[in-house]
Amino acid sequence: MINAAGREIPSVINGYKEVMPFSGAYNNPGNGIRTISRYKTVWPGGNKVLGSIREAVEKVGLRDGMTISFHHHMRNGDYVLNMVLNEIAKMGIKDLKIAASSIFNCHEPLIGHIRNGVVTGIEANYIVGFVAKAISKGILDRPVIMRSHGGRDRAIEAGELHINVAFIAAPTADVYGNLNGIYGPSACGSLGYAFSDAKYADRVVAITDNLVDYPLTPISIDQTLVDYVVKVDRIGDPKGIVSGSTNITRDPLGLKIASMAADVIEASGFLKDGLSFQTGAGGTSLAVASFLREKMRAKRITGSFGLGGITGFFVDMLKEGLLKVLLDTQCFDLKSVESLREDSNHIEISSSMYGNPHNKGAVVNNLDVMILGATEIDTSFNVNVTTGSDGIIMGGSGGHNDTAAGSRLAIVVTNLFKGRLPIVVDKVTTVTTPGETVDVLVTEQGIAVNPRDEDLKKKLIDSNLPVVDIDKLKDMAYRLCGTPDEIRYKDRIVAVEEYRDGTVIDVIREVV
Amino acid sequence: MINAAGREIPSVINGYKEVMPFSGAYNNPGNGIRTISRYKTVWPGGNKVLGSIREAVEKVGLRDGMTISFHHHMRNGDYVLNMVLNEIAKMGIKDLKIAASSIFNCHEPLIGHIRNGVVTGIEANYIVGFVAKAISKGILDRPVIMRSHGGRDRAIEAGELHINVAFIAAPTADVYGNLNGIYGPSACGSLGYAFSDAKYADRVVAITDNLVDYPLTPISIDQTLVDYVVKVDRIGDPKGIVSGSTNITRDPLGLKIASMAADVIEASGFLKDGLSFQTGAGGTSLAVASFLREKMRAKRITGSFGLGGITGFFVDMLKEGLLKVLLDTQCFDLKSVESLREDSNHIEISSSMYGNPHNKGAVVNNLDVMILGATEIDTSFNVNVTTGSDGIIMGGSGGHNDTAAGSRLAIVVTNLFKGRLPIVVDKVTTVTTPGETVDVLVTEQGIAVNPRDEDLKKKLIDSNLPVVDIDKLKDMAYRLCGTPDEIRYKDRIVAVEEYRDGTVIDVIREVV
Repeated sequence: MINAAGREIPSVINGYKEVMPFSGAYNNPGNGIRTISRYKTVWPGGNKVLGSIREAVEKVGLRDGMTISFHHHMRNGDYVLNMVLNEIAKMGIKDLKIAASSIFNCHEPLIGHIRNGVVTGIEANYIVGFVAKAISKGILDRPVIMRSHGGRDRAIEAGELHINVAFIAAPTADVYGNLNGIYGPSACGSLGYAFSDAKYADRVVAITDNLVDYPLTPISIDQTLVDYVVKVDRIGDPKGIVSGSTNITRDPLGLKIASMAADVIEASGFLKDGLSFQTGAGGTSLAVASFLREKMRAKRITGSFGLGGITGFFVDMLKEGLLKVLLDTQCFDLKSVESLREDSNHIEISSSMYGNPHNKGAVVNNLDVMILGATEIDTSFNVNVTTGSDGIIMGGSGGHNDTAAGSRLAIVVTNLFKGRLPIVVDKVTTVTTPGETVDVLVTEQGIAVNPRDEDLKKKLIDSNLPVVDIDKLKDMAYRLCGTPDEIRYKDRIVAVEEYRDGTVIDVIREVV
Repeated sequence: MINAAGREIPSVINGYKEVMPFSGAYNNPGNGIRTISRYKTVWPGGNKVLGSIREAVEKVGLRDGMTISFHHHMRNGDYVLNMVLNEIAKMGIKDLKIAASSIFNCHEPLIGHIRNGVVTGIEANYIVGFVAKAISKGILDRPVIMRSHGGRDRAIEAGELHINVAFIAAPTADVYGNLNGIYGPSACGSLGYAFSDAKYADRVVAITDNLVDYPLTPISIDQTLVDYVVKVDRIGDPKGIVSGSTNITRDPLGLKIASMAADVIEASGFLKDGLSFQTGAGGTSLAVASFLREKMRAKRITGSFGLGGITGFFVDMLKEGLLKVLLDTQCFDLKSVESLREDSNHIEISSSMYGNPHNKGAVVNNLDVMILGATEIDTSFNVNVTTGSDGIIMGGSGGHNDTAAGSRLAIVVTNLFKGRLPIVVDKVTTVTTPGETVDVLVTEQGIAVNPRDEDLKKKLIDSNLPVVDIDKLKDMAYRLCGTPDEIRYKDRIVAVEEYRDGTVIDVIREVV
């Protein structure tokens, strides 16, 4: 069947639940009962600190066929997923499903565990590197399920993703299981992606390299949710956890695009007191924020909140008074970790509060402007950030389709082409974010407005911005780069891309 | 049947669920699945702010027979319970159950609503004043259910207390339903008792007199849990919400008892680095803290955490560095509200985290010393803080039996008699807290140690403290005051006292 994003979706996908095709970004409201969560008495005198990961795996009763979860605040410096899986593999447990919020290059050992049958399923919001390639080459029998950040929390709360045991990398933990991410040698800042795991997993194990006296303050995930605490030498490599700093692009093309995007925000009428926005940590996105900052300073505008994925750039805006509040699901650099630790207007939020479309209103719903990247964007404004133009997985939604759906103005900023590959294309390789939730595309060759947004288009033209038809941008890209080659796929589906509401927006097939 | 606290409990209680008799403080661990909680989409552009309480009552679909809940941080200054019930009464809705964490004198209008059939059931942790008397005189057909603070959260999570609509008095709310208690004209500090209501009620309505722009910081109860926000003129009378200040007793007898209690703490070995404790806000309890503070200063001891029910006295100890952290379910005075607002080591916790015996370890489990009051204490160390010696309800457990069960050293401080009434008695009128969880009784006439605690008794004797047998204290009290008259009851049970684990520890009958 053809779904509302125009993609051909099989009515049955082997190894996946019943297929609900994507039917439009706002057509599948939630109104139901959250999944089970377990309580269990710990009496006075009870001890939660265990001597080893093995002991924890034994105590929680991990068995073949279960689902274990991880969060990705350690990013490419994470040691925890590998440590836990190594121990589990040694213990002979098999057929596990890994529900990681994201998977990075550092998780390459996962490939061995898949080959050995320890891991037979993966669900994640973002997958890059060796594991992504192996999945695209068909290493798993069951398709991987890919979700948005908010969609993962929705799936957990709805019981679609039931976690038997959550392993939480905790930069600081006290002996009774209170956790935070802001102190310790592996400080990562916010633990926002791990909140739902802690709330809904049957059993919760915190793994820390900074075990402190009771009671820890502040508390991000509290003692009522954590069964056991294990102290290890190191939970991650600081170099991979947070960047020393995140920087604005110096590329002239990127700066041009960013400047135009800032002009779009101004022309659209959002440049006023109370402005809220999110950008990614990429150089061009940060450059948009930089140009926006100049405009805010010039017009003496005080924004409302910055959302993310927080960088030092946002911290500077908070300190300068250009933003009142930062709402933070993860910290990208050291400055933002420090700010979360010290500034009471910089607050940690769960990814459910951030983007879950089925709670009583996520933060993304209150976002004025979202600056989005794209691996590809097609003439229907569908965006792909999941696969490369070779069809191989190299990312995933993360917060992409959450923020596009929630924000009042979703702007995609990208070069028209990169290397010899057109970014604006006829049809994206994979739909991550449906075109109906994207308002504007800004390239160095002009600005395309979604035909749904006639008013916006008029405003931009009135402001003398270079508005062009998206088909023209695509034609220009194809003229310069040539028409992209068709990717050759096998029949087998290696990943199902769920939209944030749990419907299937696209499938990803094994590449030849 | 006779329960483990030695009380005769009927095997069937009309209007109450199946009776599970109290079987010992640590004999009923929890290991199960939390009750349902509901999610519901609010799309971008959705509005949560309603014009009136009536509109909120209509929108949430309140109907005859439902249960509505309130929290008691507004204490005797609360306007919200009365406002909501007045509106509901006007709308003609009947047969409601009120699940209030506590009921105060200001809630007298409840009596009229009971007479008119609007309210037919009450569940609360603490009831004083007019409503308490009316209940004891048999105004309700169904027995009231009384619980501890931790027990209420347990009952909510277990689904025994299912809340259809929670009305949350919010000193500050933003337009999207983020709430805190630390700002605004009705600032009360912590909102700890309302957390479970917000999480597990089918629908949640915040009522505020300080509606602010999005997003509020800090956030105590977040937007993902709140359906609607109603702005009213005033949610409470500041004079009734928090005291200007809380003070140490000046009564010489009270000071003597307090001094002896501090000596007990020292003699028992808890006066060392890492000491944690809780006291009530009463004058004698605060005096114990004051003597303890002197000892800590003299011995250069740094405590760990203070728990409560927080007063300015604890705030001073935090500022002085005698305590590292305050864990706060409610603020008793203005100084503690200010501290919660400004000191990052003073943190708000839910009453579930505070005392729920069925979560993965409540804070009370880590409490070294608890200073408890008593209306009566009997020779089995059972304590009554629920009824007067006339049998009329005038309180309830609150955190009493939670902290007694959790703490390593539970000390009851009380005069031997008050007026002409003995406090140490043969058999308490009502058992609130079972004797097995009480370690020591300190009176002006001597210190009685629970026979279970032989080591402790030896330590106190070795320290030359005036240890006496509790029967001797009772005899002394009876000699001075005469043997108390038997209370004359009717057969009808007006309230069921549930222990924190949900078993029935006592029943309260209609007084003649």
